[in-house]
Amino acid sequence: MELYDYYRSSAAWRVRIGLRYKGIEAIPHGVHLLRDGGEQHAQAYRALNPFGLVPTLVDGKEVLTQSMAILEYLEETHPAPPLLPRDPVARAQVRSWAQAIACDIHPLNNLRVLQYLEQELHQPEDVRRAWYRHWVILGLEALECEIARVRPDDRFCWGETPTLADVCLVPQLYNARRYEVELAPYPRLCRAEAACYELEAFSLAHPDRQPDAPR
Amino acid sequence: MELYDYYRSSAAWRVRIGLRYKGIEAIPHGVHLLRDGGEQHAQAYRALNPFGLVPTLVDGKEVLTQSMAILEYLEETHPAPPLLPRDPVARAQVRSWAQAIACDIHPLNNLRVLQYLEQELHQPEDVRRAWYRHWVILGLEALECEIARVRPDDRFCWGETPTLADVCLVPQLYNARRYEVELAPYPRLCRAEAACYELEAFSLAHPDRQPDAPR
Repeated sequence: MELYDYYRSSAAWRVRIGLRYKGIEAIPHGVHLLRDGGEQHAQAYRALNPFGLVPTLVDGKEVLTQSMAILEYLEETHPAPPLLPRDPVARAQVRSWAQAIACDIHPLNNLRVLQYLEQELHQPEDVRRAWYRHWVILGLEALECEIARVRPDDRFCWGETPTLADVCLVPQLYNARRYEVELAPYPRLCRAEAACYELEAFSLAHPDRQPDAPR
Repeated sequence: MELYDYYRSSAAWRVRIGLRYKGIEAIPHGVHLLRDGGEQHAQAYRALNPFGLVPTLVDGKEVLTQSMAILEYLEETHPAPPLLPRDPVARAQVRSWAQAIACDIHPLNNLRVLQYLEQELHQPEDVRRAWYRHWVILGLEALECEIARVRPDDRFCWGETPTLADVCLVPQLYNARRYEVELAPYPRLCRAEAACYELEAFSLAHPDRQPDAPR
């Protein structure tokens, strides 16, 4: 497979974790989101992915977009080791937590949104940082409350092995730290994160370990 | 089942379509997103759904949140009629298009985001409308391009029966019209939408037909 990737993209990072966890080799292609006005907007990349976002996964002649759709595809085509539990209610819980990050936190803090706040709405940096932190804190508070209630004793978000919820959580907590969000109020989430980083799939997928990361 | 719902919520509307399409009865409970500062923030509702968002689906003793997770749950527990094709690549395409709406358009235009722009960033109505239209147009352009390229001749977004992509598309196009987005540039999307509204599951799930809609 081939992965069009950017080292610090949360969505691409999710797919990197999924690929590594399932032992799938993918040749990385760096798409620099800031260079030359954003390589994701270039015509060559848009021809592959009209949404102009990373990641894009190429599997043979198939071109797949959207991180959560790609992860479900990997789960269906490479079911072992699984990233979803077997029971439908458990699967719904895991997907709900993953989507709470993928739909309710991350889209609001994406690069293009911060750029719009700066360039179109002329908001200064402190206002943009407050915006970022607002949506992160709102989302993490609810997620901590929910996971601590539903699965108080598990090692990962759900169960003793990682799931799609952890795959989304790890990049989100990294971003929270970048914006100096205090994570002490989220002990349940931090415990799952720590368990993830003990696994090579997660540690090797970290932005700092990517070939397109700055030295 | 029981559905905590608001007639004009896109996310709740998706679940209404899924329930009706699969012939599942659900007792509706209106959660008024604007009354009394938003009933979704009330303690009683937060106890059910800590995210303070609609929809919430209750199935026996299970409480399920996040529209896309709920729809996958319905697909797994009530597989007929299906809302996903059988082939993994096709499923990935459908999920990608659904997520392009659920992750890249709708979260940016959600009520709470428009309220933040107004109340915290003091942006006037014309700026908020431009924001709304910006993300809708960006998303619909890419989606039109992608679906017209991958499935040019299908009746629905993917195939001859509706899928999760159509379930997300119909509420999104309704919202686009509310904000006076010109839809003529998206003939492929409008064709899928028209096919959807010919089905009772879609027409009965429309906001105007809900018990909590204003008379």
